[in-house]
Amino acid sequence: MSAPTRPALDFQAAFAARVRGMTASAIREILKVTQQPDVISFAGGLPAPELFPLADVKAAAARVLDTYGPAALQYSTTEGHPPLREWIAAQSGIPAQNVQIVTGSQQGLDLLGKILISEGDTVLVEAPTYLGALQSFQPYLPNYVQLPTDEGGIDVDALEGILKTTRAKLLYAVPNFQNPTGRTLSVERRRRLVELTAEHGVLVIEDDPYGALRFSGEALPSLYALGLELAGDVDRNHVIYSSSFSKTLVPGLRDAWVQAARPIIQKLIMAKQGADLHTPTLNQMIITELLPILPRQIEIVKQAYGERAQHMMARIAADFPGGVDHTVPEGGMFLWVTLPHGIDTQAMLPRAVERKVAYVPGSPFYALGGGENTMRLSYCTATPAQIETGIKALGDTIREALD
Amino acid sequence: MSAPTRPALDFQAAFAARVRGMTASAIREILKVTQQPDVISFAGGLPAPELFPLADVKAAAARVLDTYGPAALQYSTTEGHPPLREWIAAQSGIPAQNVQIVTGSQQGLDLLGKILISEGDTVLVEAPTYLGALQSFQPYLPNYVQLPTDEGGIDVDALEGILKTTRAKLLYAVPNFQNPTGRTLSVERRRRLVELTAEHGVLVIEDDPYGALRFSGEALPSLYALGLELAGDVDRNHVIYSSSFSKTLVPGLRDAWVQAARPIIQKLIMAKQGADLHTPTLNQMIITELLPILPRQIEIVKQAYGERAQHMMARIAADFPGGVDHTVPEGGMFLWVTLPHGIDTQAMLPRAVERKVAYVPGSPFYALGGGENTMRLSYCTATPAQIETGIKALGDTIREALD
Repeated sequence: MSAPTRPALDFQAAFAARVRGMTASAIREILKVTQQPDVISFAGGLPAPELFPLADVKAAAARVLDTYGPAALQYSTTEGHPPLREWIAAQSGIPAQNVQIVTGSQQGLDLLGKILISEGDTVLVEAPTYLGALQSFQPYLPNYVQLPTDEGGIDVDALEGILKTTRAKLLYAVPNFQNPTGRTLSVERRRRLVELTAEHGVLVIEDDPYGALRFSGEALPSLYALGLELAGDVDRNHVIYSSSFSKTLVPGLRDAWVQAARPIIQKLIMAKQGADLHTPTLNQMIITELLPILPRQIEIVKQAYGERAQHMMARIAADFPGGVDHTVPEGGMFLWVTLPHGIDTQAMLPRAVERKVAYVPGSPFYALGGGENTMRLSYCTATPAQIETGIKALGDTIREALD
Repeated sequence: MSAPTRPALDFQAAFAARVRGMTASAIREILKVTQQPDVISFAGGLPAPELFPLADVKAAAARVLDTYGPAALQYSTTEGHPPLREWIAAQSGIPAQNVQIVTGSQQGLDLLGKILISEGDTVLVEAPTYLGALQSFQPYLPNYVQLPTDEGGIDVDALEGILKTTRAKLLYAVPNFQNPTGRTLSVERRRRLVELTAEHGVLVIEDDPYGALRFSGEALPSLYALGLELAGDVDRNHVIYSSSFSKTLVPGLRDAWVQAARPIIQKLIMAKQGADLHTPTLNQMIITELLPILPRQIEIVKQAYGERAQHMMARIAADFPGGVDHTVPEGGMFLWVTLPHGIDTQAMLPRAVERKVAYVPGSPFYALGGGENTMRLSYCTATPAQIETGIKALGDTIREALD
């Protein structure tokens, strides 16, 4: 005789209030639809794997284990592997104690959300913005305000108006080759953004995973550098900077960093201790070992992405109908397409998949909705032939939708 | 002329309310004091590095990179590397979809706290309990209730009384060779704990990093297995199980897992996506590659720790004054020493360090205070000679304090 069945525990009732802020990535659900093997996908957000320095990683792993022995596999400090922190700090001319190593920049965003966002705090985000940041911040139940953007990035006049009427805690931005739009914030706007936020006591999180991957135009000063110039003191800079080795070396090791004023770093260390003790030791040592090949690797990646972007834009010019706009990225992995109003890219996606091509509809990138007629295209993992076939098929899909 | 200095942004005012729940690990601060090179330290919580399967890890890393190529370095799924999830699931005879890979069991605790603990929720913890769990849970601002314990672990009669008068959300326990005490919860108490919590609708987190490292006595059923028996359905089990490869293979790769009912796992996946996207791909593949040597490795580690524990207990019997009690661990890494009332082990620590020996005072392991006359000793990284010299010095320190 089996035991009498008890009433099931009500798991839904057990969840914390902040679970209501958690959502599965809309993109993740979309990607499932598009992952048929014969579909040409411009939907992914992955870097090109054929460019990974596979042999270098293999040699680095062996060398690290020979050099450090068991210490490469032991627990290590929460702050991060000292030579890696020092190298990162030296790039910005700041002390190593202002750098915290994190397990992918996603963790940096989560920990920053954890230490900074109280329920209902206003967080300013670009419209559209990086979806992963929304996922990191949402459990902390912020109140989002969308910043209007145009070709030059955030509209700083609009920002000024918002700052005058809204008490904001935080501004989150991706100034270089933004995900999803590929846009870059101009230097004049950078200066005004940094000054305005400083004036209004608003912290800035500058997320810069793609900055090193500029394939045209001139490098611009980071918000972090401008904030440092303004504050005159690394520990009074109101800009927090986040970057990663995921797009320049490899993403699967999950090595990234945050650099910020000491009061922020001190709380980050505590938050990280509770979150995962430390970033994997071996991985940090492998990344450190790969630093000498980083400049070469950056050249390889940006040349490839630059060629693929050019090719995609040329094919768009040839194959898309009139009335369709797109951004012209100067680096990074994405471009952004705006179709005539009235076309819903989410509704159009099944038609594109029927024609064996996929993209990500734009509206999930808006914290508060919008962009129904937009889409994100990644050019970085497609071959020239795939770009030709895929863009032609997408052009046909759009033409059909316009009819 | 330099720019006028602006008033510094008030970082302290910018922090979220939950930051007040974050503290630097008390142990971490203590360890700094004890890390003089000539001090014999029983204070650490690290596994013995000379037992790490270094050559196997090196071979596994090379094999993984050869076999999987760039996929070993690419982004991967949030749930975890499928073969690793399947292997873990098979150990408990459950489906792989009930397993979530996490970046060290610390991350599992953080994510469980994130999805389950609302501010003010009552969390039942052993007195004393694992400090890292308190650090993971504290940012979510729980209300702790301490469960009295004795040689057999949690006092389940006391638990029953508390459950009748307190509406608790969660019970957190380490039933096997607990950190910090080395105690094991008896099988009768396990059954009652599982029944009582099920009856009162209280979720249980069973943290089991040391379970495989039993060097004496008989293996006992996990709370998870007893919960499964009671619920009769893997997706209705109110016990959530957490374990890790950190103590059996190596900690520096940060590979651990949570197994639980699907409603819990579904929210964990979302929380993990926001927290770090996924556990490093390469590391999960290396761990999977090491699974064939896991049984051999467990034998090596538990034999070594068993010998070291025996040796330490023999030296304690010979060198400590009367009136000092200690636990007799059947596995794991720690034993727990109780001195006569009135001796404060925190105050005594500098005297011990003067005699070139270190331990961790017990009171930081109490969520609500207590245990001023207790200390945790780790036997797992000390040589026989260090155990002899260190225990003698510690005996002398205690004798001096008793005078």
